[in-house]
Amino acid sequence: MAEKTLGIGLVGTKFMGRAHSNAWMTAPRFFDLPREVLMRAVAGRDVADVAAFSRRWGWQCCTDDWRDLLDDPQVGLVDVCTPNHVHAEVSIAALEAGRHVACEKPLAGTIADARAMRDAARKAARRGVRTFVWFNYRRCPAVALAHQLVKEGRLGRIFHVRASYLQDWGGPSTPLLWRFQGKLAGSGAHGDLNAHIIDMARFVTGEEVTEVVGALEETFVKERDLVEASGGAISGKGAKRATRGRRKAKSTVDDAVLFLARMSGGAVASFEATRLATGNQNRNTLEVNGEKGSLRFDFERMNELSWWDHALPARLRGWSVIMCTDAAHPYAGNYWPAAHVLGYEHGFVSQAADIAMALGRRKPVVPIPDFADAFEVQRVLEAAIRCARTRRPVSVADIR
Amino acid sequence: MAEKTLGIGLVGTKFMGRAHSNAWMTAPRFFDLPREVLMRAVAGRDVADVAAFSRRWGWQCCTDDWRDLLDDPQVGLVDVCTPNHVHAEVSIAALEAGRHVACEKPLAGTIADARAMRDAARKAARRGVRTFVWFNYRRCPAVALAHQLVKEGRLGRIFHVRASYLQDWGGPSTPLLWRFQGKLAGSGAHGDLNAHIIDMARFVTGEEVTEVVGALEETFVKERDLVEASGGAISGKGAKRATRGRRKAKSTVDDAVLFLARMSGGAVASFEATRLATGNQNRNTLEVNGEKGSLRFDFERMNELSWWDHALPARLRGWSVIMCTDAAHPYAGNYWPAAHVLGYEHGFVSQAADIAMALGRRKPVVPIPDFADAFEVQRVLEAAIRCARTRRPVSVADIR
Amino acid sequence: MAEKTLGIGLVGTKFMGRAHSNAWMTAPRFFDLPREVLMRAVAGRDVADVAAFSRRWGWQCCTDDWRDLLDDPQVGLVDVCTPNHVHAEVSIAALEAGRHVACEKPLAGTIADARAMRDAARKAARRGVRTFVWFNYRRCPAVALAHQLVKEGRLGRIFHVRASYLQDWGGPSTPLLWRFQGKLAGSGAHGDLNAHIIDMARFVTGEEVTEVVGALEETFVKERDLVEASGGAISGKGAKRATRGRRKAKSTVDDAVLFLARMSGGAVASFEATRLATGNQNRNTLEVNGEKGSLRFDFERMNELSWWDHALPARLRGWSVIMCTDAAHPYAGNYWPAAHVLGYEHGFVSQAADIAMALGRRKPVVPIPDFADAFEVQRVLEAAIRCARTRRPVSVADIR
Amino acid sequence: MAEKTLGIGLVGTKFMGRAHSNAWMTAPRFFDLPREVLMRAVAGRDVADVAAFSRRWGWQCCTDDWRDLLDDPQVGLVDVCTPNHVHAEVSIAALEAGRHVACEKPLAGTIADARAMRDAARKAARRGVRTFVWFNYRRCPAVALAHQLVKEGRLGRIFHVRASYLQDWGGPSTPLLWRFQGKLAGSGAHGDLNAHIIDMARFVTGEEVTEVVGALEETFVKERDLVEASGGAISGKGAKRATRGRRKAKSTVDDAVLFLARMSGGAVASFEATRLATGNQNRNTLEVNGEKGSLRFDFERMNELSWWDHALPARLRGWSVIMCTDAAHPYAGNYWPAAHVLGYEHGFVSQAADIAMALGRRKPVVPIPDFADAFEVQRVLEAAIRCARTRRPVSVADIR
Repeated sequence: MAEKTLGIGLVGTKFMGRAHSNAWMTAPRFFDLPREVLMRAVAGRDVADVAAFSRRWGWQCCTDDWRDLLDDPQVGLVDVCTPNHVHAEVSIAALEAGRHVACEKPLAGTIADARAMRDAARKAARRGVRTFVWFNYRRCPAVALAHQLVKEGRLGRIFHVRASYLQDWGGPSTPLLWRFQGKLAGSGAHGDLNAHIIDMARFVTGEEVTEVVGALEETFVKERDLVEASGGAISGKGAKRATRGRRKAKSTVDDAVLFLARMSGGAVASFEATRLATGNQNRNTLEVNGEKGSLRFDFERMNELSWWDHALPARLRGWSVIMCTDAAHPYAGNYWPAAHVLGYEHGFVSQAADIAMALGRRKPVVPIPDFADAFEVQRVLEAAIRCARTRRPVSVADIR
Repeated sequence: MAEKTLGIGLVGTKFMGRAHSNAWMTAPRFFDLPREVLMRAVAGRDVADVAAFSRRWGWQCCTDDWRDLLDDPQVGLVDVCTPNHVHAEVSIAALEAGRHVACEKPLAGTIADARAMRDAARKAARRGVRTFVWFNYRRCPAVALAHQLVKEGRLGRIFHVRASYLQDWGGPSTPLLWRFQGKLAGSGAHGDLNAHIIDMARFVTGEEVTEVVGALEETFVKERDLVEASGGAISGKGAKRATRGRRKAKSTVDDAVLFLARMSGGAVASFEATRLATGNQNRNTLEVNGEKGSLRFDFERMNELSWWDHALPARLRGWSVIMCTDAAHPYAGNYWPAAHVLGYEHGFVSQAADIAMALGRRKPVVPIPDFADAFEVQRVLEAAIRCARTRRPVSVADIR
Repeated sequence: MAEKTLGIGLVGTKFMGRAHSNAWMTAPRFFDLPREVLMRAVAGRDVADVAAFSRRWGWQCCTDDWRDLLDDPQVGLVDVCTPNHVHAEVSIAALEAGRHVACEKPLAGTIADARAMRDAARKAARRGVRTFVWFNYRRCPAVALAHQLVKEGRLGRIFHVRASYLQDWGGPSTPLLWRFQGKLAGSGAHGDLNAHIIDMARFVTGEEVTEVVGALEETFVKERDLVEASGGAISGKGAKRATRGRRKAKSTVDDAVLFLARMSGGAVASFEATRLATGNQNRNTLEVNGEKGSLRFDFERMNELSWWDHALPARLRGWSVIMCTDAAHPYAGNYWPAAHVLGYEHGFVSQAADIAMALGRRKPVVPIPDFADAFEVQRVLEAAIRCARTRRPVSVADIR
Repeated sequence: MAEKTLGIGLVGTKFMGRAHSNAWMTAPRFFDLPREVLMRAVAGRDVADVAAFSRRWGWQCCTDDWRDLLDDPQVGLVDVCTPNHVHAEVSIAALEAGRHVACEKPLAGTIADARAMRDAARKAARRGVRTFVWFNYRRCPAVALAHQLVKEGRLGRIFHVRASYLQDWGGPSTPLLWRFQGKLAGSGAHGDLNAHIIDMARFVTGEEVTEVVGALEETFVKERDLVEASGGAISGKGAKRATRGRRKAKSTVDDAVLFLARMSGGAVASFEATRLATGNQNRNTLEVNGEKGSLRFDFERMNELSWWDHALPARLRGWSVIMCTDAAHPYAGNYWPAAHVLGYEHGFVSQAADIAMALGRRKPVVPIPDFADAFEVQRVLEAAIRCARTRRPVSVADIR
C-alpha cells in the first residue's frame, strides 16, 4: 500500500540544500503527484544556520544532527546534500533505517564509498527501499529530448560522443574551499563536473563507457588562500566572496581532468571537466554524432537542443535549434507556454516530481538513476583517474 | 508605521494567476524582504476551480467573488490577473477600499478604463495607497542591466529603437479564446505584446514615445472556431488544446500591429507585435543603437544581453554577449551561481520581491511601474491604433 | 547567332568598379560559360587612376571618357558602376548604341531617371538588347535558396515580411562623401540600402509591395565635414579614412528611412535602412513568416539560411540553420566543398556568370532583374519617400 | 637583387590546384606586391585535364610531367598540390633545382618524408632558397587576430587549448578515394585535419606541444566501395559524387584521431579530427583559455572571433563576437568594407600575397610556416599516432 504522504528529511543547507528545498516546495504546484510532499525536517551542522534555513524554506523542523531524521517516523525519504565524503555514512544509515534515499551526485568521493553505497542500496531494495541520485541535467527538457531521440533510433549507429563541462570560478584568486580539499571532496572538477557529463553521455546514448584510453589530470593552481575559520569551510560556489586569510595551503584536488574513451556501441568519446576555462561559466556541453543524425547541447542555452537530421535531402539539411519548451517536450508542458523559458532550478523540480512519481508507483518521464546506475558513473571516474595516474589505458570492467 | 505582514489577495487563476502565485510563494525564499508575504486569499469565477487552485498554491482561503477580498482585513494588496476588461473595476474598487493594487499589464483594454484607473491611483496615493503594474520583463536581469547601462551614459545619444514581440500561437487553427474577443481583451497582439515592448523601450532608453508616424493593424484570421461552452471561455494561451466546436465566429481583435514612432530624445523607433510570426514562439526583442554603443536583447535567450562598446578601438570592437547571471547583475545574485540560468518566471518572482520592498520602504532594484507610468504605455497603444485607423500621424500629446 | 565573346566595358573604378572587375575576372574560372568574357575596357574620371586600375585588374584598355566605350565594337555590354545620378545618362546612351547594359543598383537616384531608363530598356529590348541590374544579394546562395523554398510552396500563405539593412559607418565623424550629397546620390540609406531589401523581399516572396502605409525619414547628422578637394569627391565607403577639411556643409540625404507596407498577397511588411545603427556593420536581414513555415537571413552570416518547417510535429520543430554551401544549393557547387564558406564578392561573381549565361541563351540559376524589374523597386522607394514627406499612405500604383 | 617577376609552377590540378590558381590570380589585385606574379606553368597527370585546367585558370603553359617545371627558367617557385606521398619527391627536386617551394599541408604523409624535406629545406636555405607550407587558416583574419591578441599578452598564462576539426563527408557511402588509401595519403583525418589544428594551436598560443598523453585512432568504416578506374583515383573531396563500382576494399587510414597533450607553457590540450561527425561539414574550431581572457574560433563562422576579456568588471564581461572584417584587422582591409564578409578562399589569396611579400623582402602580416615549422606539426602527428598504437604517452622530444 502506497502511503499518501512523502515526508522529506533534508541533510545539507548550502547550494544544493537550497536547490532541493526549492524543488520539494515547487514540484507539487506544477505536477500532479501521487503522493503529497511534506517538507518535514532539515539537518545542518550549525544550529543557528539550520534554523534560519528551515524558516526560510518552510521545513517543519530542524536539527544539527542528521541522525535525528532517522528517528522521525514522518521522514520517508532522506535527501543527502552534504559534501561528498559524508554521502556514504548518511545514505547507508538512512537505508538501514528503511528510508528511501535521494543523494546528490557524485555518488561518493571515493570508489570504496560508492561501492558500499551500491551494496547497501541492493540490500535495502529487497525491503522495497529505493535510491535516487540527483543527476539533475537528465531532466533538462533538451537533454531528456535528446535521450528520446536516440532511443527512437534517429541517430543510428553512434560514432562520436563529445562532452565537456567547463567552468571558470576556480582561478588563482579563489580560496581553498572544501571543493579544493581532497579529503572532503574526493576530487575537484572530476567528481563535480565529469560525473555530470559521464551520466549525460550514458543517458543520452544508452551506451556504457567501456575503456578509458588516455587521461590527463592537472592542478594549475597548486596553493590557495585559506578560508578564514568562521563558517566558511563548507560553503559552496558562492564562497568566492568569502573573506580570505593570508595564509595559503596546498590544493589537493584536480582543477581539470580530460579523458578519451570507448563506448560499448563502438563510439569514441572525449570528456573534459575544468574550473579554469575562463569565460565558460557553466558550459556543460554534449555532442553526439551518429550515422543518421547528430545532436548538440550546451547548458548555457539549456532550452535549446540542436538536431541534425541526415535523412533530409542535402539541400534542406541544417542544425535545427529546437526550443524545448513546447507541451510536446518532456517536462515543459508542466510549466509555462512555449518559449517562456525554463532555468537551472527546473531540473531539480522535475526530479523531485519524478521521485514522488516513482514512490507513488507511477513512471517518471525519463529514468531516474539509482545507486547502481550512479555507481557506473563512479567506475568511469575511477578508471579515468587511474588512467591519468598510471599513464596506461584502463578497462572499466576492471573497476568493481 | 509599516506593517510586518503583507497579505495578498489574488484575482484570477489562469496563466497569470499561476505565475503570480509562484512569485509570491517563491520571492521570500530568495530575497530578504522587509515584510512577510502572506498568501491570504484567491478569487476566481468557478467555485471548484478556485478551490483546487487555492489548495495547489497554498492560499489560505478562496472565493468566487473578488469583492470578498476587500472585506478581508488581512488583504493588504490586491493582485489583479483577470482579463483586461475587468482590470478597472477590480483595481478601482480595491484602491477605494484602501488596498494597494498590483495589476497585470496592459493597464486596461481601453484608454477610458486606463484613465479612470490612473485617476483612482492618483487619488489613492494621497492616502498612501500604492499601485504597481506587472511589466515583468523589466526584471529580467538582462533588461534591467540594459536600463542601467543606458542610464550610465554608455550609449550616448540614441538614434534607433527597434522593438518586436513575435509569437505564433494565433494561427488559423487556434479557436476564439477571450484573447480574440475585443470586448474582453480590448485588443489582440497590440495590448498583449506591444504593451510589453513599449514599456521596455521606455524603461531601457529613459525616453518617451512622442509621436506615432505610421501604423498598420491587421487581422489575418477573420473567423475562428468557437470554444465549446465548458469552461474554456477564459482560458489563456494553453487553450490551444481546448476542444473546439464546429461553429465559427468573427475575431474582433488585431492579429498584428506594427508602428513607427519618434522618441523624446530624437531617436526613431519601430514596434511590431504579432501572433502569427510562425517559428517565433516568444521572441520579445529590443535593439537600441546609440552614438557610443548599442544593445540587443531577445527574450528567447533571456539570460543574455548583447552590448557593443563603440569606445573600444575598431580592432577590438564586437557584440559582447553578457550572460547576466553573475552576482554583479541585477537580481541574479539572489538566485544561483553564474550561468546557472534563470527562466521566465523569475521576472515575476523578482517583481513580487520588489513590490514587498517598496511597501516596506526599501528601494526596488530598478523602478516598478505604477498606474501613472503604465498609463503612458496606454497612450502610446492608443496613439498607434488611432494612427492605424485614421491613416494619419498621431501625437501622443493628443492622447490624454 | 550568339557571339562567342562577350566584351565588357566598365564605367567606374571605385568600390563597385573593383567588385565587378573581380567578378568578370573570376566568373569564367568557376562557371562553364557559353560566352567567353573579355575584359575589354574601363572608363574613369581620372586618367592616372583609371590607368592604374586597368593594369591592376587586367582590362585591355582604359579611358577617361565613358563615351569611348560605345565606339569600341568589341564592347558588347556596358557595366555601369558610377554614382547614381550618372546611371541614366550612361545606360541610355549605351542602350541606344545597341549595347547590353548591366547597371548597379539602385536603378537611378530619381524616379524620373529610373523611368527614362526603363523606357529606354523597353525600346532597346525590341532590338534584342538586354538590361540587368546588380542586385547582388539575390545570388547569395542562402537568398537564392529562400526564393526557391517559397516558390515550392514551403511557406504557404505569407503573413509577415521583416526587412532591415543596418550599417553604422555614417556616424558624425564621417565626412560629406558623395553618398551624403543629394544631387549625386539621390538619397542616403534609402536608395543605397532599402533598394536592396525591397528587391530581396520581392524576390524571395514573389509578391509586390502595393502600399506604403507609414514612413519615417531622418537625417540625424545635419552637417558633415567637407572632404578636401583632392580626388575624394567620388570615393565610396572606404573614404571614411579620407583627409577632411575643417569646413562643414549640410548633408542633403537621409541617414535612415523606415517604412511599413502591404504586399500583394496580403502580408504586412516593415523595411528599415540606416547608416547609424552602431555595431551593425552590414546587417542585411530578411524574415518571412508564412502559414506553413518561416525563413530568416542575416547577411553578416551570409552562408546560413534559417528555416522553420511548421509541418513537422511540434516536438521536432526548430529553426534549422542550413549552411548553404552544399553542391545542392544554388551556386555553391561551383565554388568549394561544403562549409568552405563563401563571401561577399561571390554574389557578384555569380551574377557576372548568370549575365553571361543569359546572353548565351542559357537560363540563369535564379532570375536576374532587368530595368523593368528594378523600376518596381524604384517605385517603392519613391512611394516610401512621398509617404514620409506627405505623412499620408501612398499607393505604389500611383507611382508610374 | 630581388627579381621583379615571380614565376609560379603549380603541381596538381584538383581541389588545391584550383584554390592555389585562384590565389595566384587574385592576390595581385587586392595586394600591392613587391614582385609581379606570373602564372607560368601547371603540371598534372592527365594531358587533356591539365590543358583544360591551364586554359581555365590562365596558366601560360602546361605539362603532364612536373619535372618540366624545373627546366623552365621562368619558374621561380614550385607550388606543390599533389597527394601527400608525392610532396617529398617534388619538393626536394625543386629545392635542389634552386626553386623556392610552397607545399600543401601536411608537410608529408610520413615522418620520414617530412624529415627529408626539412633537411632539404635547410640545405637549400643556405643558397637563399625559401620554403613555405600552406597552412591556410593562419591567414583567416580571425585566426591572425587571435595570434596577435595572445602575443600582446591579453590572455596571460594559458590553461587550456581545445581544438577540433570535424567533417562529415566520410560516411559509409563515400567510396575509396585516395584520401582513404594509406599509401597515397599517409593517414586519414589525422594528417588532413589534425595537421591544421596542431598548426593553429601552435600559431595562436606561441607554444609547442611537448607530450601526447593519450590518443585514440579509429576507422569506423572498415571497407569502402572502389572508385571505378576512369580517372577517379586522385580526386579530392568533390569525388563523393564519383561513380562507384560494386567491389569493396579495405580502408587503410583512420577516420578519426583524438589526442590529449601538454603544451610547453603548462597548458593542457585536446585535439580531435574526424570525417564522421555528421552535421559538422567543416567545423574547424579552436578555444584557448587563459588567466586574463579566452578566445573561441569556429571556421564555419570564419569572419568571427569570440574574445572574453577577463580584465573587465564582472558585470560587463561577455563573449565579444568580433567581426574580423574591419580595416584594422589583419588582411581584411585589403578586400572589402566592414562586414562585407570573406570566405574560405581568401586565406589562400592572402597567403599567396604573403609569399610574394616574403620573396620581395617584405614582412608578411603574420609568420608563414616553412618546412622546419611544418616539421614540428609532423612530429606531433607522429607522436599522436605512436601514442594511439602503443597505448603509452609519447614525448614529442622523442620524435626527430
